[in-house]
Amino acid sequence: MFHHSGKLQYPVKVDKPDPQFAMLLQQAIGGVEGEIRVAMQYFFQAMGNRGDDRIRDLLMSTATEELGHIEMLAHAVTLNLEGAPVSYQEESAKDPIINAILGGANPRHLLSSGLSAMPVNSNGVPFDMSHIYASGNLGADMMANVAAEASGRTLVSRLYNWTDDHGMKDFLSFLIARDTYHQQQWLAVIEEMGGMEAQLPIPNATPTDHEATQHSYYYLNTLLDKEAPSGRWAEGKSLDGRSEYFVKNQPEPEGQVPELGPAKPLSGAQEEQITPMKK
Amino acid sequence: MFHHSGKLQYPVKVDKPDPQFAMLLQQAIGGVEGEIRVAMQYFFQAMGNRGDDRIRDLLMSTATEELGHIEMLAHAVTLNLEGAPVSYQEESAKDPIINAILGGANPRHLLSSGLSAMPVNSNGVPFDMSHIYASGNLGADMMANVAAEASGRTLVSRLYNWTDDHGMKDFLSFLIARDTYHQQQWLAVIEEMGGMEAQLPIPNATPTDHEATQHSYYYLNTLLDKEAPSGRWAEGKSLDGRSEYFVKNQPEPEGQVPELGPAKPLSGAQEEQITPMKK
Amino acid sequence: MFHHSGKLQYPVKVDKPDPQFAMLLQQAIGGVEGEIRVAMQYFFQAMGNRGDDRIRDLLMSTATEELGHIEMLAHAVTLNLEGAPVSYQEESAKDPIINAILGGANPRHLLSSGLSAMPVNSNGVPFDMSHIYASGNLGADMMANVAAEASGRTLVSRLYNWTDDHGMKDFLSFLIARDTYHQQQWLAVIEEMGGMEAQLPIPNATPTDHEATQHSYYYLNTLLDKEAPSGRWAEGKSLDGRSEYFVKNQPEPEGQVPELGPAKPLSGAQEEQITPMKK
Amino acid sequence: MFHHSGKLQYPVKVDKPDPQFAMLLQQAIGGVEGEIRVAMQYFFQAMGNRGDDRIRDLLMSTATEELGHIEMLAHAVTLNLEGAPVSYQEESAKDPIINAILGGANPRHLLSSGLSAMPVNSNGVPFDMSHIYASGNLGADMMANVAAEASGRTLVSRLYNWTDDHGMKDFLSFLIARDTYHQQQWLAVIEEMGGMEAQLPIPNATPTDHEATQHSYYYLNTLLDKEAPSGRWAEGKSLDGRSEYFVKNQPEPEGQVPELGPAKPLSGAQEEQITPMKK
Amino acid sequence: MFHHSGKLQYPVKVDKPDPQFAMLLQQAIGGVEGEIRVAMQYFFQAMGNRGDDRIRDLLMSTATEELGHIEMLAHAVTLNLEGAPVSYQEESAKDPIINAILGGANPRHLLSSGLSAMPVNSNGVPFDMSHIYASGNLGADMMANVAAEASGRTLVSRLYNWTDDHGMKDFLSFLIARDTYHQQQWLAVIEEMGGMEAQLPIPNATPTDHEATQHSYYYLNTLLDKEAPSGRWAEGKSLDGRSEYFVKNQPEPEGQVPELGPAKPLSGAQEEQITPMKK
Amino acid sequence: MFHHSGKLQYPVKVDKPDPQFAMLLQQAIGGVEGEIRVAMQYFFQAMGNRGDDRIRDLLMSTATEELGHIEMLAHAVTLNLEGAPVSYQEESAKDPIINAILGGANPRHLLSSGLSAMPVNSNGVPFDMSHIYASGNLGADMMANVAAEASGRTLVSRLYNWTDDHGMKDFLSFLIARDTYHQQQWLAVIEEMGGMEAQLPIPNATPTDHEATQHSYYYLNTLLDKEAPSGRWAEGKSLDGRSEYFVKNQPEPEGQVPELGPAKPLSGAQEEQITPMKK
Repeated sequence: MFHHSGKLQYPVKVDKPDPQFAMLLQQAIGGVEGEIRVAMQYFFQAMGNRGDDRIRDLLMSTATEELGHIEMLAHAVTLNLEGAPVSYQEESAKDPIINAILGGANPRHLLSSGLSAMPVNSNGVPFDMSHIYASGNLGADMMANVAAEASGRTLVSRLYNWTDDHGMKDFLSFLIARDTYHQQQWLAVIEEMGGMEAQLPIPNATPTDHEATQHSYYYLNTLLDKEAPSGRWAEGKSLDGRSEYFVKNQPEPEGQVPELGPAKPLSGAQEEQITPMKK
Repeated sequence: MFHHSGKLQYPVKVDKPDPQFAMLLQQAIGGVEGEIRVAMQYFFQAMGNRGDDRIRDLLMSTATEELGHIEMLAHAVTLNLEGAPVSYQEESAKDPIINAILGGANPRHLLSSGLSAMPVNSNGVPFDMSHIYASGNLGADMMANVAAEASGRTLVSRLYNWTDDHGMKDFLSFLIARDTYHQQQWLAVIEEMGGMEAQLPIPNATPTDHEATQHSYYYLNTLLDKEAPSGRWAEGKSLDGRSEYFVKNQPEPEGQVPELGPAKPLSGAQEEQITPMKK
Repeated sequence: MFHHSGKLQYPVKVDKPDPQFAMLLQQAIGGVEGEIRVAMQYFFQAMGNRGDDRIRDLLMSTATEELGHIEMLAHAVTLNLEGAPVSYQEESAKDPIINAILGGANPRHLLSSGLSAMPVNSNGVPFDMSHIYASGNLGADMMANVAAEASGRTLVSRLYNWTDDHGMKDFLSFLIARDTYHQQQWLAVIEEMGGMEAQLPIPNATPTDHEATQHSYYYLNTLLDKEAPSGRWAEGKSLDGRSEYFVKNQPEPEGQVPELGPAKPLSGAQEEQITPMKK
Repeated sequence: MFHHSGKLQYPVKVDKPDPQFAMLLQQAIGGVEGEIRVAMQYFFQAMGNRGDDRIRDLLMSTATEELGHIEMLAHAVTLNLEGAPVSYQEESAKDPIINAILGGANPRHLLSSGLSAMPVNSNGVPFDMSHIYASGNLGADMMANVAAEASGRTLVSRLYNWTDDHGMKDFLSFLIARDTYHQQQWLAVIEEMGGMEAQLPIPNATPTDHEATQHSYYYLNTLLDKEAPSGRWAEGKSLDGRSEYFVKNQPEPEGQVPELGPAKPLSGAQEEQITPMKK
Repeated sequence: MFHHSGKLQYPVKVDKPDPQFAMLLQQAIGGVEGEIRVAMQYFFQAMGNRGDDRIRDLLMSTATEELGHIEMLAHAVTLNLEGAPVSYQEESAKDPIINAILGGANPRHLLSSGLSAMPVNSNGVPFDMSHIYASGNLGADMMANVAAEASGRTLVSRLYNWTDDHGMKDFLSFLIARDTYHQQQWLAVIEEMGGMEAQLPIPNATPTDHEATQHSYYYLNTLLDKEAPSGRWAEGKSLDGRSEYFVKNQPEPEGQVPELGPAKPLSGAQEEQITPMKK
Repeated sequence: MFHHSGKLQYPVKVDKPDPQFAMLLQQAIGGVEGEIRVAMQYFFQAMGNRGDDRIRDLLMSTATEELGHIEMLAHAVTLNLEGAPVSYQEESAKDPIINAILGGANPRHLLSSGLSAMPVNSNGVPFDMSHIYASGNLGADMMANVAAEASGRTLVSRLYNWTDDHGMKDFLSFLIARDTYHQQQWLAVIEEMGGMEAQLPIPNATPTDHEATQHSYYYLNTLLDKEAPSGRWAEGKSLDGRSEYFVKNQPEPEGQVPELGPAKPLSGAQEEQITPMKK
């Protein structure tokens, strides 16, 4: 069960409202790199967690923190929209060159939300929950979480560059810090479970006889006019400790030509597919 | 530029067609864990790759291999639909208990595709390209790729369990093997770039003065009735080598109450929001 | 069966075409507050209407009117795009400060529709039919219809503020008027059915023994640091006439901890989830 | 800021797991009538609330309660999936007639989530955030909230009928009760603001001279072969107290034929559209 | 402006209701091959029609007919759901083998719509308006319309095979007939405009000096291990009458390697992308 | 199986990068008129092709060429983003009038992709795979392919007008040329199969007794105030050679009023729907 405090996790101040920055900030709310995504992803992973209740608690506790991040960002968007024009007259009265809101803001902040935040990204595309990755495999989920926090910190670092507002920079530096930790928090779960070698390949419980292991350790070079690039992926002991990497250049297809027969009558095909043309 | 061989990368055989398994296999084509996703993800990462052309070649070469995996899976779906009924009479003539196609198959295989594969998942939901993660940050992208291959191998392992068809099991064991390698291939890029400690936090080029580092190394416990779970995330040297982890229990909000003033006239609000009610 | 007159329901004139206003108007066509939504919502409610044929006729008649509103809006969008530039040269020849079309218009009006209306909102996001609410419960549907018309009139009121074109203002004042009526039309159905008290709780036909009525009349205050706000929701006779409202402060969870056991072998989990780690 | 208790708001028990009921329950999580929708809708309305802080607190407090409802439902789904087969052999060993999981369950519960809940509806379609209605107009938002709770209680009432599991029936009777209250809670806000007559038409702050009021109070009968249905919508004092309702039968279009001129050269049209055909 | 008659365009009868067939019929309402698509597509093409008002009238008249087709199909779905069970008890009382509704019907017909039609396809995926193709080019739009009617008639032909209900077969035979005409109606517009040779290439108004015509008439064979297939596409006068077709085998890339330089500092990349690794 | 050459199919040069043109170009990658669509559409049609292996080879060969077109366009987008600002300071240092990137570019090129291409359209909406039309009917699919290439050439013609960059114009003139051929390539398949008359109506294998042929050859005029427009669609031998066209003016509905009975108890309806109101 959830509870709520009236105050924000960290102060959110805007020195000079900027409707264009409000549009950019939306990416951190409703973008695939944003906070709705991580809050809901950790929540659903927690609800399906099996095997170690500490991980469930980590997931739910962090989901709960991320809900508070959505809250701060929503307030930041709204503060950036304070005083934005709501009519043609107001808009025209402003400096038409620098601040033309219709040219650089989300029109739905004006038309749909009454100057407040929405669960959409910076293009105005609503977040959809297909981006909640919760596979029931702890290794896969931890990697998905590291990826989410890495793209999240990348996004917030970029947002930091796009404002010169001191309040916003202070707020964003807090989010950058929390993403630093959360990336490592999920990698630390891998450590706690014995480290990457022990966890690979994911799922590590797939029986070996379900796998054509002769195809498990080579880099396949499908490039017609280039040698395979050299590097760690092409040689040395495999990261799962089970084999050695090698390169397979100029691959030949091993399978058949995927030919199908004629179509069935009454299957909705053209006659010529049922009784094929002579070539 | 791309080229095509007429044969499949690996043999795809079906001993006994099964329209229900065709529906399940669709998840590996058009699901978020599937092959359209990785093919397109690696392709777009390759097109935006900056800094080391070897990585671009790795990405494009693997994207090209994954296109061939979509091809094999599409053929596998179609082979499982061979001989499926296309009319009420055919369906009724079958054993109505075990094989009732309308109860366990994708109806659009019957109505929309003429008994062949579609770019949809096992619920019939079309793949959408918002799942192509290509951030321009190599660290974030490699983690996203490991996550994609981990969920991919999890999915194919589950599909393997849901068939007793020898042809299908052989084919799926090949995909399991390739996912084993591809997980490690992307982690090997991290190794090649100096290892995880050097790459963290992602982006590792974000200047330290953009980060409120006093908030970068603690686990925040938002659980009201539980102690923070102990583990690697709560103590010891941080995985980025820059600090030590610690726990922050019973967090107090540090920010303000997010109060807004009254609404502007002509903003589309109710009168009571413009001239607020007395409480 | 439907029929069509060649003329519009109400005159649609544009004194001075404005591609930016064309973009804003799209919200009233393809936005969730727009006319495709209400036309299709009333249509599907009509097709599933049970119990009183007058309501079906009301729904279908109003759906038919709303189709004519889409028509007027589509013409309004197209008139605002008349004379818009279709090439770099034309665009550059215009005053680059005020009218830069690429900075404040929908680029797909230029690229995809040939300067005419599209079934998208003001962000260019296509309308999707999941927003057609038709539950088969007349009370729920009437409330959904009032909500749709309320957000519709809010939107059109905001659009009215964003233009100084006399033709557009006249046209929008007509839409504002029709939304005034339609809000009340659906509330009048509630009146005709005995009023709100008789209709609550929706569905009013759910048997009382399907309901844990001891939980039906309190406001639950989940705020840790605030008293429950006082007001009509916290005291007095309930609006369904069945009880009295009261407040439940500082709620204690009554349920269990949602713990799951270990994962099944062959379920695609990591080994550590099948044979859990010791803590 | 949010906090979390380890226990559920109300006990969630399942006497006999049922994967088909797990699929149905998903509608209450990720359906448009479900709990993600109301939690997020109230949250975003709270963040944009202007004019009366009590309403913000009501909204945020209830959003917080609804997060706990998602939690209970997610656990209910997972409990119904406990013991579900994860392989062909297990499935075949069961009674193939009654419980064939592939024919009546969500295949992604088997393939994608590892037997736990997902943020999707009962068709497996992910929830998308375009369904979060938060207009910045308190009247419109309250009606949207009543509509959401009405469709929610309709859904849970239907789910109640589809199970004979005592644990599930007890749990669902709690949700039915809370929806009873929440419908009335939002209507009570209307009462607190002076009642429906004072709030209509929404927005009540739209200036009268923005409205063609001669079109504000008639029912328009677009049916060619039927009289307008009689009822409260067709006569008597208007619900906003400003006028009287009447009927307009056999409407004549008042507008023009929406003719456009020829297409511009270089606009991507066919020649015949630029230099039109003679008729 | 639109008007409505109370009766359906053609009789819709169901001899024996079948909830599974109701699910299949949904494809003809909310599928990409369905009637919402053509109704809305012809409507938006009509609203943007330029150059010959006869075509606008054809489009709007046919859009209006298609609205009546949605109406008939919605009634057909609802009739097939008449008498469907709404509770566990009813469902269990029926023959559990043949008619198990949960295994072969749309669960949202039970949970969301109260046993009536919805704007979704046979997988329960809502129709989205991105499928409304209206390009402003009459040639492109006519081909899109022929394609829509061709897939529509294919779908209805398949539905015809999946029922043995006389009422449904009679109704579907009417839809098959109308699709026969509508395919040809749109091709007849091409005829009226001078025929296919005159209309090609679409747009026929694109100036020749915008086109690298040396690349306009060859079939490019990208297959590594196959000769180009012989046929009309490989030889003879081109269908636009401007040239002769030929084959280009074993194509060599003519462009450059798409290399990018290092990433900019502060662009959110990893350090290694800004100061690239030595190879 | 697929293979890749390191070079592009055709040179892609940008003389002067332009972030706004990058945004427009995205329509040709991720728009419904774009290259992902045709590549994937031809691929899935190839995989389900039945009856003539030459057509499968044509489809797969062209799918492979189109993959190379996505590649060129992705490089064109990225080249147009080279040197774009990544911070407020850089942006402000530019001419704020002409080049304000936030007002006319895709913000996700700055925030999400690190200045490279994405699988989205010019509104930033991701491509979704529901637009892959592959029906299993060769006639329907060829028409869909002509339509796709026609809208594609229309789009590229419009893009050509929106740039004065010589490199871009040269590149786009190549795409215009290939679309010229591909339109005709698919029409040539119709020729090869006996021509349009032989292929109509699609599917031409639907038995005549499945069709109410008395309804197959008339234009239905649903316009109340207009005569049917005269033209080829209204008279003369039908294009399928089976009949003559005629006009049906002022159509009378032939079907019934779609009345439903009262709602079932326990179906989630209001009481008034179960025991209907007297009228």
